[in-house]
Amino acid sequence: MNYREQSLKKHAEWKGKIEIVARVPVDSRDNLSVAYTPGVAEPCLAIQKDVSQSFELTRRWNTVPVITDGTAVLGLGDIGPEAGMPVMEGKCALFKAFGNVDAYPLCIRSKDTEEIIRTIKLLAGSWGGINLEDIAAPRCFEIESRLKAELDIPVFHDDQHGTAIVTAAALLNALKIVGKELAELKTVINGAGAAGIAIAKFLRKMGVRDITMCASRGIICEGDTSINPAQQEIAKVTNRRKLTGKLADAMAGADLFIGVSVADCVTQDMVRSMAERPILFTCANPVPEIHPQKALAAGAAVVGTGSSEFANQINNVLVFPGLFRGALDACATTINDEMMIAAAHGIASCVSDKELQPDHILPYAYDQRAHDAVAKAVAEAARRTGVQRRR
Amino acid sequence: MNYREQSLKKHAEWKGKIEIVARVPVDSRDNLSVAYTPGVAEPCLAIQKDVSQSFELTRRWNTVPVITDGTAVLGLGDIGPEAGMPVMEGKCALFKAFGNVDAYPLCIRSKDTEEIIRTIKLLAGSWGGINLEDIAAPRCFEIESRLKAELDIPVFHDDQHGTAIVTAAALLNALKIVGKELAELKTVINGAGAAGIAIAKFLRKMGVRDITMCASRGIICEGDTSINPAQQEIAKVTNRRKLTGKLADAMAGADLFIGVSVADCVTQDMVRSMAERPILFTCANPVPEIHPQKALAAGAAVVGTGSSEFANQINNVLVFPGLFRGALDACATTINDEMMIAAAHGIASCVSDKELQPDHILPYAYDQRAHDAVAKAVAEAARRTGVQRRR
Repeated sequence: MNYREQSLKKHAEWKGKIEIVARVPVDSRDNLSVAYTPGVAEPCLAIQKDVSQSFELTRRWNTVPVITDGTAVLGLGDIGPEAGMPVMEGKCALFKAFGNVDAYPLCIRSKDTEEIIRTIKLLAGSWGGINLEDIAAPRCFEIESRLKAELDIPVFHDDQHGTAIVTAAALLNALKIVGKELAELKTVINGAGAAGIAIAKFLRKMGVRDITMCASRGIICEGDTSINPAQQEIAKVTNRRKLTGKLADAMAGADLFIGVSVADCVTQDMVRSMAERPILFTCANPVPEIHPQKALAAGAAVVGTGSSEFANQINNVLVFPGLFRGALDACATTINDEMMIAAAHGIASCVSDKELQPDHILPYAYDQRAHDAVAKAVAEAARRTGVQRRR
Repeated sequence: MNYREQSLKKHAEWKGKIEIVARVPVDSRDNLSVAYTPGVAEPCLAIQKDVSQSFELTRRWNTVPVITDGTAVLGLGDIGPEAGMPVMEGKCALFKAFGNVDAYPLCIRSKDTEEIIRTIKLLAGSWGGINLEDIAAPRCFEIESRLKAELDIPVFHDDQHGTAIVTAAALLNALKIVGKELAELKTVINGAGAAGIAIAKFLRKMGVRDITMCASRGIICEGDTSINPAQQEIAKVTNRRKLTGKLADAMAGADLFIGVSVADCVTQDMVRSMAERPILFTCANPVPEIHPQKALAAGAAVVGTGSSEFANQINNVLVFPGLFRGALDACATTINDEMMIAAAHGIASCVSDKELQPDHILPYAYDQRAHDAVAKAVAEAARRTGVQRRR
């Protein structure tokens, strides 16, 4: 039985991957009077007097919804809000297991950007942070940036930034193996959706200068009005060498290929055309842009994929539990660039120089040390940059 | 230290009365691949094909948010959405402890009826039912009735119906003590807000014919246009004897007084003016309409209050955990009158004829047998009336 068949059977048995439990005794008159009426009036009045007390007197401080509209779920696309719930619930289980974050799934029956923003804003007083998930581009950009601007709790679209952070972590360690520097890398990103654009933006912040982005029609160029606004924006700061043509043209001479695109779009010849000791992160799921063995046979020095079937899985499970743990621990009001960069370095640091190998550049997703390292690094960055809630 | 001081201290220690836990293993590559990617694609696709599968393959079937706008919290009034959270969270702890329902609190930053309805409707695909809480009248009526009409999961405004059901349960047992019948009772309800009106409506469904309602200005009469629309509506079916005057005028000759109003508005003379062996449920919180000892000294046969300090606490904690447990177990698409009546009889049945005393007409709120009895009765009523989801 493969994972998919097994998963369907298990989900039918489990009937839910998370559960809510009571943390207080309610089994006597006295206990009820403290946890509920009449005693509960007092914490209510304390919050009425000072709303920030809602982070101290309720579970708000540790609560993060995983919110989707069901329009870009896994590689499945627009399958509807309810159908996205097994993924959201899985994410919530991972939030708890690795980050001790109390997360629950919410699916929104709307594809209207303003309506989604409004719905989330109206409920934000219930939460310590917000994880957006599997919302289609370009809607996801507007939703996240507006919520970040208009709310004073951390907002994070995992498909963009989680992917970017773990990719950057993989890159930091791969560079140690090939002996290259971020600033000198010629980089190709194939796939100009939410993840591809977020990776490009984040690598620029990390110090990568030369990035060429490709969409399915080929290299993205500044001034092309046939591409969407998010792509037009990233085109202004990428492809500074003004390349034109197809993916193969972009890859010639590149040091790094990052694929968040489709199965089997990269050939061995393309790998052979790259610079010395090239790095390939082929993250298309479930089938990568090129099979790792073929890429290695064609001269790749380091290969990572999005799949657990191969070495070096570039999995954003390594990011979100620790990232939110750190943000919540620091009472952060946002997640800024410094916190995300700290998360990438935190992940990378969990593979020691002694352990580092071409087929082992990242910690395993279930390695608790990695999540703890991310949390610590993110909390420190939040404190350093002063994005903390008044207490 | 009284309950309130103790409660504030405990809430600061607890930092949350509920918590979310993972129910599945995610501690290895294989386990991750089943609970999360790539396996999770299969349950997603199964729900895309048949949305009702969301009740089978996720925790939706057992999940109920406790939703407030913070406008009518306890006796505290409009204290704001965040300030209502300690009550909502307490309710969630009780939902789990007594009903094994997975409940979490949501506060909405809006007082706009349409906006609240829209927000809840957009998220309803995440839930198996909805508990509305501490929303001010008359907004709460429209919100509940619209959501009931427009959604196919149970929707329940606890302040209305929870209070009505537990009051009816108390009445059923009090009548055994005084030897009277529902149909012959002269009833006065003091307080014409959400709870008072809901009690009147529900007692009529239970078989009570003669009800006189009073607001702070006195007896409510049909045709009075100075009262709000909800009061005008209930005035059409109450006070058929066309009484006028104040509370004291209504109480003369009454068999039953139900107060959901304010402290100390009932005198011993008013109690003396009632019929033989009168019943008084004085539920104003924290101080009842008349102290139980004073009511008993003036001839009351049975007295119940809203407070845990006295005998016969009429506490809607006896209702909501079992009611939702039963509705969820039966895969009910709504909560109808038959289910609510069954809940009242279920609670009443938990005090045996041998146990029944003037100072013991209801089971204790922490008596698990009562919650189980409610769940069983409600599930049976749902099945009997055929309000079950197709499976």
